[in-house]
Amino acid sequence: MVMETGLIFHPYMRPGRTARQTFEWGVQNSVACDKAGFTSMMISEHASQIWENIPNPELIMAAAALQTSRIKFAPMAHILPHQHPAKLAIMVGWLSQILEGRYFMGIGAGAYPQASYIHGIKEAEPQMLNDMVRESLTIMEKVWKREPFFYEGKYWDAGYPEEHPAETEEDEQHMLADFSPWNGAFPEFAVTGFSSNSPSMKLAGERNFKPVSIYSGLDALKRHWEIYSEANIKAGFTPNRQRHAVSQTVFCADTDAEAKRLVMEGPIGYCFSKYLIPIWHRFGMMDGFAKDAGIDPKNADLEFLVDNVFVVGSPDTVVDKLNTLFEQCGGWGTLQVEAHDYYDDPSPWFYSLELLAKEVAPRVKLPGAVAREPVTA
Amino acid sequence: MVMETGLIFHPYMRPGRTARQTFEWGVQNSVACDKAGFTSMMISEHASQIWENIPNPELIMAAAALQTSRIKFAPMAHILPHQHPAKLAIMVGWLSQILEGRYFMGIGAGAYPQASYIHGIKEAEPQMLNDMVRESLTIMEKVWKREPFFYEGKYWDAGYPEEHPAETEEDEQHMLADFSPWNGAFPEFAVTGFSSNSPSMKLAGERNFKPVSIYSGLDALKRHWEIYSEANIKAGFTPNRQRHAVSQTVFCADTDAEAKRLVMEGPIGYCFSKYLIPIWHRFGMMDGFAKDAGIDPKNADLEFLVDNVFVVGSPDTVVDKLNTLFEQCGGWGTLQVEAHDYYDDPSPWFYSLELLAKEVAPRVKLPGAVAREPVTA
Repeated sequence: MVMETGLIFHPYMRPGRTARQTFEWGVQNSVACDKAGFTSMMISEHASQIWENIPNPELIMAAAALQTSRIKFAPMAHILPHQHPAKLAIMVGWLSQILEGRYFMGIGAGAYPQASYIHGIKEAEPQMLNDMVRESLTIMEKVWKREPFFYEGKYWDAGYPEEHPAETEEDEQHMLADFSPWNGAFPEFAVTGFSSNSPSMKLAGERNFKPVSIYSGLDALKRHWEIYSEANIKAGFTPNRQRHAVSQTVFCADTDAEAKRLVMEGPIGYCFSKYLIPIWHRFGMMDGFAKDAGIDPKNADLEFLVDNVFVVGSPDTVVDKLNTLFEQCGGWGTLQVEAHDYYDDPSPWFYSLELLAKEVAPRVKLPGAVAREPVTA
Repeated sequence: MVMETGLIFHPYMRPGRTARQTFEWGVQNSVACDKAGFTSMMISEHASQIWENIPNPELIMAAAALQTSRIKFAPMAHILPHQHPAKLAIMVGWLSQILEGRYFMGIGAGAYPQASYIHGIKEAEPQMLNDMVRESLTIMEKVWKREPFFYEGKYWDAGYPEEHPAETEEDEQHMLADFSPWNGAFPEFAVTGFSSNSPSMKLAGERNFKPVSIYSGLDALKRHWEIYSEANIKAGFTPNRQRHAVSQTVFCADTDAEAKRLVMEGPIGYCFSKYLIPIWHRFGMMDGFAKDAGIDPKNADLEFLVDNVFVVGSPDTVVDKLNTLFEQCGGWGTLQVEAHDYYDDPSPWFYSLELLAKEVAPRVKLPGAVAREPVTA
């Protein structure tokens, strides 16, 4: 068992980018990742924030569908309270068929109150949002089963009709289209967790969803796996570390100095200065990292993050950093690399992705597992 | 003023086609039409029927966005009662930006009761559906304006939040994304009409929407323009025939005999035998054509349609047939060619599209207008 590489595309495009540039950058990344050997690309869904400005991840997946052949796509996540579950179920089923199964489905309740507000949820109260998620899942699963029902829910009504009988042998006007997901099965569901005692990790364990951790320090990451696997075992499943994906800021270049410079002075540094560092300070998201390094969170700046939190350096350095992390926390299945806005000069970014998939990933080993030889280009 | 060519993609793929084939055929058609000089491609949205099996036209538009440069896309139509208006408004805004304005928006209430049922509408009662359409439009226009509001509707709630002030000069976390349509304007709306006294044509006139007639005989077509232009003038607008699109079954080949054979024995004939002729008989949709030809609707079969209703033949014949129609009804702006399933052997289909755009369209003239010279390949 070895580490796989994936991308997570939020996409952290700087304000001023056009929708077309953002969209194009998404398609270009999917093609580059598919070619490099990445096994998955997750794409966010956000309706409010300028720095996370993809409202419909399915449009990028559709544009990439015929231009990629191996990579799997996942919305991470479709915000279930914002849309009619039957409409979403049919879109997901159709898209997973178009992708011939290269699809799994992140689901979420919505993180930004402003996005909830747009979709008619004035007070984004967690209990209600989770209630909506559960009702949405119930309806989607019924629609995918394609058996007649009509459900009058608290938030939505939905149904599936009976197929009418044919009027003549020739006639096909009665036949219903099949928009159930690829192979008629439910898609694999995935949820993300961030905080140390993430309720999403518990849900993932209970329902056997794929757990995706947004990296927020070692303690939280270890807790995520504990919470997930405990709930997973209790529900009668066998936890599998290969299914665990961890998102991280990762950048690889020929030398450590070059990698650090490209991050500090490039799009990653710009995004953290303008957007993520202010948010992380505001919501206490710097605390776990500061604790790991034994500093005051107030003093955590970009350079601190590059040196201590991100995984940045030459292939050898990145392998070492990941193997150290893996020893400390037990490892995970997929390194979900956070995408950034290298639209103006993509070459260092795509080179980093190639190094990660071909030079780094094969040499990262789960404790107890044997590393593969690196793939030589 | 000359006739433009457009495509309307339902897509009438035969049962057994995979989702991927249907999707691929849509993308291939958009690229071929863009290259041939078609000015628009309309794509249906249907959740229930196997012969009209695109639930999300936006996925095909997204896949075609970066591969086309001139053609405009339109859902024909997004079924407004089936989806949350804010979610739809944001998707439409984003997609129209991705397409840099090559977009207009068909809207509808839903024609198939089974599709309504899936989306929670047990009894698809026209008055209620139209009510939902109106409320959806109200909400979409508010979301596109990006001014703070919260609306508690009969069918949906929706809002737009205030942008928070920046905490520091550096900080961009407060900024809201702009998903209003291209140039911040509303998209052009379009509606389709079929029956002789189509209420959609009246609505189109009143609201100055683009009128799209599904061809159902000369009388109905003439009535469509009368109803539309009367309502349009009454509402203070100036009706413009160039905006009127008429969908038709059209096929062109080098000779009349070849064109007729390719239609009778090919995918168009198959679709009419299995799907459209049974439907047309069942719902009285054959009556207008039968009346035009002076026959009993019961006797209207495929060959009758090919000879009397469809526009099939060599370029000269197709020009003559269209000029005759134009003289009889006053003409229209765009011939919206009904797409069919030539997936297995696309060459006669793409050749027909080329002939229509390059050899036929320039020679069709609106009464009183001068025809252009044909474009020589």
